[in-house]
Amino acid sequence: MNLISDATLRDGNHAIRHQLTSAQIADYARAANAAGIDIVEVGHGNGLGGSSCLLGQTPIDDRAMLDTARAALTTSRLGVHFIPGLGKSADIELAIETGVDVVRVATHCTEANVARRFIDQTRQAGRTAFGVLMMSHMAPAEVLLAQARLMQGYGAQAVILMDSAGYSTPSLVREKVRRLVGELEVAVGFHAHNNLGLAVANSLVALEEGATVVDACVKGFGAGAGNTQLETLVAAMEREGHATNTSFERVTLLARESEAFLSPKTPHIPAANIASGLYGLFSGYVPHIQKAALEFGVNEFELYRRLAERKLVAGQEDIITEEASRLARARDAQQAGRRQETARELSA
Amino acid sequence: MNLISDATLRDGNHAIRHQLTSAQIADYARAANAAGIDIVEVGHGNGLGGSSCLLGQTPIDDRAMLDTARAALTTSRLGVHFIPGLGKSADIELAIETGVDVVRVATHCTEANVARRFIDQTRQAGRTAFGVLMMSHMAPAEVLLAQARLMQGYGAQAVILMDSAGYSTPSLVREKVRRLVGELEVAVGFHAHNNLGLAVANSLVALEEGATVVDACVKGFGAGAGNTQLETLVAAMEREGHATNTSFERVTLLARESEAFLSPKTPHIPAANIASGLYGLFSGYVPHIQKAALEFGVNEFELYRRLAERKLVAGQEDIITEEASRLARARDAQQAGRRQETARELSA
Repeated sequence: MNLISDATLRDGNHAIRHQLTSAQIADYARAANAAGIDIVEVGHGNGLGGSSCLLGQTPIDDRAMLDTARAALTTSRLGVHFIPGLGKSADIELAIETGVDVVRVATHCTEANVARRFIDQTRQAGRTAFGVLMMSHMAPAEVLLAQARLMQGYGAQAVILMDSAGYSTPSLVREKVRRLVGELEVAVGFHAHNNLGLAVANSLVALEEGATVVDACVKGFGAGAGNTQLETLVAAMEREGHATNTSFERVTLLARESEAFLSPKTPHIPAANIASGLYGLFSGYVPHIQKAALEFGVNEFELYRRLAERKLVAGQEDIITEEASRLARARDAQQAGRRQETARELSA
Repeated sequence: MNLISDATLRDGNHAIRHQLTSAQIADYARAANAAGIDIVEVGHGNGLGGSSCLLGQTPIDDRAMLDTARAALTTSRLGVHFIPGLGKSADIELAIETGVDVVRVATHCTEANVARRFIDQTRQAGRTAFGVLMMSHMAPAEVLLAQARLMQGYGAQAVILMDSAGYSTPSLVREKVRRLVGELEVAVGFHAHNNLGLAVANSLVALEEGATVVDACVKGFGAGAGNTQLETLVAAMEREGHATNTSFERVTLLARESEAFLSPKTPHIPAANIASGLYGLFSGYVPHIQKAALEFGVNEFELYRRLAERKLVAGQEDIITEEASRLARARDAQQAGRRQETARELSA
């Protein structure tokens, strides 16, 4: 099973100068938990101890952010980003106290050695430690491998290559991830940014090469051009057969629930357009499908799937209504069946 | 040399219900011509004869749109989209009269036979004909090849696979383009939509497999989730060594000139963020670089390149000002040199 590490409440914080509120963290974490997200990263964009005049101050401190998220998560694991120097040993202590599950210790891609004591501290406390190599485009595969080996040696249970500047192309990612997956004993992950419009493709390549952790943010919410958009990533993973504990439908609901605070911040593809791509339908159908789903009160994703099965091409708008009404009738018949059954049980 | 076929003024028309005005067409066509774009497609989103109550009416007719664009183009070729049935033989006649260079005859991916007379008509008039297979995700590689061969047989000088629904992933594109490039004698092209966030990656894969025509739109302006964003595509092509007649810098200027009417319509990545990805710089530097370029009056792209050469990592903001001032001094010295030279010439 591949793990989705959702950085919306951490890398996303960069997109709004680290102003995520307690209520937003609570709401989003609850929705992410319900959507089956594996790891929910929370905090200042620069991680534990990142709040400062220079980097931007958060309205609530690390402890309050982590307590809030912790209370909202039952199955998703709580993660933090930690950059040695910005963050200190006492910050990891705090994270452990508040019940953080995964500490992602992140260093510049050639400075893994500074991660040692923090990975060690995390493991000593019985929590999961990931090593993260930031700005990974600045070093060739063999250097990254040596650095990743250091992190593995310190006890990191996964090493994440971070394409912090969104510089990488699929061919670069393929070479580097292949090398790490081939030669490390621990899991390999990938964290993309979308500067060249390649975040989803780079993540897919990483998965093809055996990475099993992928980072993403709802609506691409994140630093700069944004991160990998979670909804497009999960849609593409479904298409390519990369298993997850969530689904396109569930992450779309997650994205819609957080509409208000994430929507205008980073360029992202609307869910309905992702759905039309995932199911291979003519883009002009999107408003018709949404309207019919609403009118007949049926699940829009189910409608997309039905229309795709019928191999609709442009100019067949009438079939949308036909299928929506068919789904509605099926639902009504099922409900009538349930009512009859209840009546029978009551009269028995 | 790879050809960029810019569909901004045609597929982009879908994003604003076909309301492009004469002034917008003139301005954009002039800027695209200056940017070194190879083919500028113009017209209703559904191509020649597409304006109708059902599909949306254009404020000016096909002739006016084409005359306007024709007057603005000196080196770029003028292209049209043509769907047999929506468009008729008389429409191609009109296109030829107004000086259209490239007629892109587009059919559903299994109906190439209806393209025959229109490709023939175009070639008889001495113009270039492309065949376009729309909704190409709906047929396997061997069917597409057979259909493309038909188009080639009718005289098409290129066959374009159109991923109309944005359904394709890089692996699907690779297989299909490889097959066509391997077995056709004419050029192969690719037209992507960005529904799964894969438009740039799919276009890169097509190029890797030997396609030599790629369609794109400034700011991703286009139907549904939008087309391949031209600026990201050209940035990625530069990175991967796919030659073009334009450059990232030139298409960025093109995108900025058309800011007003394209900007809010489709999700797209801001140029400054693409630049930071292309040159591999920390995303937090973007506002600092823009400010320094403005303050010192130096070319921002040159500044990005200088900073990339210095392998800047986060926390080195001071170097941005240093390099900007260095560029400004170099420019001043050059200007002083030119002034001295002119003075010498005048006194000689």
